[in-house]
Amino acid sequence: MMCSVINGENVSNMSFSLEELAKLADGKLVGDASLMISGFAPLETAKEGDVSFLVKAGQLDKLDSFAGSAVIVPMTIEKASIPLIRVDDPYLASARIHSLLLARPFVAKGVHEQAWLGKDIIMPEQISIAPFVSIGDRVKLGERISIESGVVLGDDVEIGDDTILKANVTVAEFCKIGSRVIIYSGAVIGSDGYGYATDKQGFHTKRPQVGIVQIDDDVEIGANSCVDRAAYGVTHIKSGSKIDNLVQIAHNVVVGENSLIVSQVGISGSTTLGRNVVLGGQVGVTGHLTLEDGVMVAAQSGVHNNQKAGSQVGGTPALPMKKYVRAAIQYGKLPEMGRDIRRLKKEMAELTAAKEEHKGSTK
Amino acid sequence: MMCSVINGENVSNMSFSLEELAKLADGKLVGDASLMISGFAPLETAKEGDVSFLVKAGQLDKLDSFAGSAVIVPMTIEKASIPLIRVDDPYLASARIHSLLLARPFVAKGVHEQAWLGKDIIMPEQISIAPFVSIGDRVKLGERISIESGVVLGDDVEIGDDTILKANVTVAEFCKIGSRVIIYSGAVIGSDGYGYATDKQGFHTKRPQVGIVQIDDDVEIGANSCVDRAAYGVTHIKSGSKIDNLVQIAHNVVVGENSLIVSQVGISGSTTLGRNVVLGGQVGVTGHLTLEDGVMVAAQSGVHNNQKAGSQVGGTPALPMKKYVRAAIQYGKLPEMGRDIRRLKKEMAELTAAKEEHKGSTK
Amino acid sequence: MMCSVINGENVSNMSFSLEELAKLADGKLVGDASLMISGFAPLETAKEGDVSFLVKAGQLDKLDSFAGSAVIVPMTIEKASIPLIRVDDPYLASARIHSLLLARPFVAKGVHEQAWLGKDIIMPEQISIAPFVSIGDRVKLGERISIESGVVLGDDVEIGDDTILKANVTVAEFCKIGSRVIIYSGAVIGSDGYGYATDKQGFHTKRPQVGIVQIDDDVEIGANSCVDRAAYGVTHIKSGSKIDNLVQIAHNVVVGENSLIVSQVGISGSTTLGRNVVLGGQVGVTGHLTLEDGVMVAAQSGVHNNQKAGSQVGGTPALPMKKYVRAAIQYGKLPEMGRDIRRLKKEMAELTAAKEEHKGSTK
Repeated sequence: MMCSVINGENVSNMSFSLEELAKLADGKLVGDASLMISGFAPLETAKEGDVSFLVKAGQLDKLDSFAGSAVIVPMTIEKASIPLIRVDDPYLASARIHSLLLARPFVAKGVHEQAWLGKDIIMPEQISIAPFVSIGDRVKLGERISIESGVVLGDDVEIGDDTILKANVTVAEFCKIGSRVIIYSGAVIGSDGYGYATDKQGFHTKRPQVGIVQIDDDVEIGANSCVDRAAYGVTHIKSGSKIDNLVQIAHNVVVGENSLIVSQVGISGSTTLGRNVVLGGQVGVTGHLTLEDGVMVAAQSGVHNNQKAGSQVGGTPALPMKKYVRAAIQYGKLPEMGRDIRRLKKEMAELTAAKEEHKGSTK
Repeated sequence: MMCSVINGENVSNMSFSLEELAKLADGKLVGDASLMISGFAPLETAKEGDVSFLVKAGQLDKLDSFAGSAVIVPMTIEKASIPLIRVDDPYLASARIHSLLLARPFVAKGVHEQAWLGKDIIMPEQISIAPFVSIGDRVKLGERISIESGVVLGDDVEIGDDTILKANVTVAEFCKIGSRVIIYSGAVIGSDGYGYATDKQGFHTKRPQVGIVQIDDDVEIGANSCVDRAAYGVTHIKSGSKIDNLVQIAHNVVVGENSLIVSQVGISGSTTLGRNVVLGGQVGVTGHLTLEDGVMVAAQSGVHNNQKAGSQVGGTPALPMKKYVRAAIQYGKLPEMGRDIRRLKKEMAELTAAKEEHKGSTK
Repeated sequence: MMCSVINGENVSNMSFSLEELAKLADGKLVGDASLMISGFAPLETAKEGDVSFLVKAGQLDKLDSFAGSAVIVPMTIEKASIPLIRVDDPYLASARIHSLLLARPFVAKGVHEQAWLGKDIIMPEQISIAPFVSIGDRVKLGERISIESGVVLGDDVEIGDDTILKANVTVAEFCKIGSRVIIYSGAVIGSDGYGYATDKQGFHTKRPQVGIVQIDDDVEIGANSCVDRAAYGVTHIKSGSKIDNLVQIAHNVVVGENSLIVSQVGISGSTTLGRNVVLGGQVGVTGHLTLEDGVMVAAQSGVHNNQKAGSQVGGTPALPMKKYVRAAIQYGKLPEMGRDIRRLKKEMAELTAAKEEHKGSTK
């Protein structure tokens, strides 16, 4: 499916009229509605049959050397020498159109003879299971699932329709994965949560982790990320959330719908995120907190307190964003602040001494 | 083993008298000593035959709607309408009792025919080796080991009794793993340490990493964590330590007994931790340091200096905890501190000028 | 190859004269040029036939109990009771000599019968492919490649000569790996970049990630690190760079030649690093930046701005190193700075009040 771009030639047979693409993107068409488009490429590398996109109206001169067939543009551009799809959000429109052009019907490769299947598996008609995949007992598999090599599914796992498990993913027993989910290579779903009880001698007894992980529809989990199973109940990643690589989601965390969690974030146990929360890279969130809908946290911040809906915070411990930005700027001035204070103290001591002297002399 | 909780029904045949459980937990029994308990559940979901637990005496009203058979409570609760196990630490007691109730005799599944075995392996009578496991030459395996699918053991690895290697774990050549160890999915034990020597042109020559990793008894290593082999000698994780997910342990690090290392911590080369050290999530520790017994480091801190036994530190670079907490609070006030200093400087200049003028006028 | 050190006995048949080793290390020889050396060991554990090394001239007394045959020393040491190789950089010389002594001719084990091969693979004469390796269609493999168990190579991947892929590595479709590269266990090369377009309702549409990863010669990628494929074009790791464990390299990042990227670093999309850049552990770099040749960033820092060649920076947001060090020291004094300011304000108010009063009384 990626040949079209990587090999520098378009191997796709799928093509769509400009009218169809404009409709998909809720856009207004300028030019020949019947023009057929079969590929998507950046402005610089597009060729005949390709549609491209332009994010800002100010970049219009980039079209001068354009060799493609049509361009997705912001609504403010009304006309050009080539066919246009005018949209409110060229970024979003191009994501939709590019995805459509790349989409291919699912080709079921079946279950490879070098895969291993447990007993009592619910197996759909259409599936692709690669060699060296291990699937436990009583696993329920939806339609058109693609499971790459090295994937291990524990007993009683459930996977929804059209989900993709990339190479070397692990999903531990009883975890539930929704439909149209993508789990990238090396991710571990359902490992034991980190919970111990410590005795007076300092020895740690493992607290059994008997819950599960539930991942809802349209979620993506990045490469080598970890979502731990709940101590009891459910660690829950709700629909539409996108989790980047090397992220740690501890036991009993709830991630609300359509949240974005950037690489190397760590979320401690029993914390709940609302809908459309955004955590920048390397953020840490302590346990048992609530970050309400739409909270945004700047990269590398440490969140130690509950956050109200729509809050934007940054720093460790996290401050309101404007305050954080000012504090961060001021941080760089700490050495001169220290010097200023020392000088002020000295001057103050001199003034005070002078005043005392003056008092004495005027008595 | 987890069906009892997840399926909402108790499939276990193992059961213990309240007296047996009280004894295990060093607790005092209130009620029918012969009452049989076969499950463990939180207060809200417990049913007949289950024991539950209550951490604080103040939560006693939660027992009103309790449907289970007995409750583990703090020693301060002396009586209730249901049987009690009174203990000093309900958290610890419940971990022990829950573990006992979940414990099942090891069922040896043998070596799967789709596993691959090198030569001269020391193979115990009782073992479970899943499909697509690869075991190198001369590997020594203890009794009742469970090795899940996709695990790779290099040549000359040693694994102790009752150890569990979860799916897709890698243990490189010559590394030694103790007994009752759990290594979670995707963890990499014995990858080469990060060591290079750089010439005048800036090219890096790899320094051979010819040591090993030794992991002692009762250690847990979290999912996708990395413990690098020593340059020479041993990277050593001592008994009872629990390491969370996505942790980096560099070459020649020593982690003392019963230490707790939370997710995404990084420990640089040749640093030594004492016993019962606790590192919060995302902490970084530079190389060649010593953190003595019982040191505790707050999440996201950066430790650049040796730490005395029992120290509690936080921040980057790490400060004594009380100082860090005050500094962190003050950090949020940096913008107003800056303003205050600017105003003080202005006022000071005015006062000084006035004084000079006054001097002049009184001459 | 590591037996010589780990087992405490030298199983190697390879040996070199002191003269040969001195020549390799650009060193000056003191003592018997024909002395044969077959092993390398630290000063403390060396025995007959071993060469060892001493980094600083001040450690000369360590040679008193030395049981090996020769020592690599700094040029400033001119003589000792044992044969010497005098060099400018003992650290570098020992890396080269140790590597030579460990080097063994490649032994091609061939393709294991339990590996799985796609169609139209370009397969060299000399190769080692372990069991449970999965190799996609049209993959091009160079000479003397070693592929350990559990490795998955997607369709159309290219791998150069003498490259080593450790257990459980994943390389996704179309990615290109150079010669003499080492990719450590669990690393994921070519996972999709993290890119979404969000609509007004907050739903995220995946932006297709149709580029590749290109890794040039002599690069090392650490265990469980992730290098994402480009959105378009190439995520590029240039020759000689060494990347540690658990590092995140986002889509379209370029890492210049011979850069060092320490564990748990995260580099955001489309950022370009020059040659010989050094990023300390847990550093975060935001997207679309340029860090020019030789930039060095202190551990745990957050880089939010372009950095000129040779800059040394630290902190979040990153400051010039000297400024950062002073700011970090001052950070610990924040509480007393706060107290000082409060007291200064009070004293200032008193002085001002006194002045006003004085003015009043002298009117």
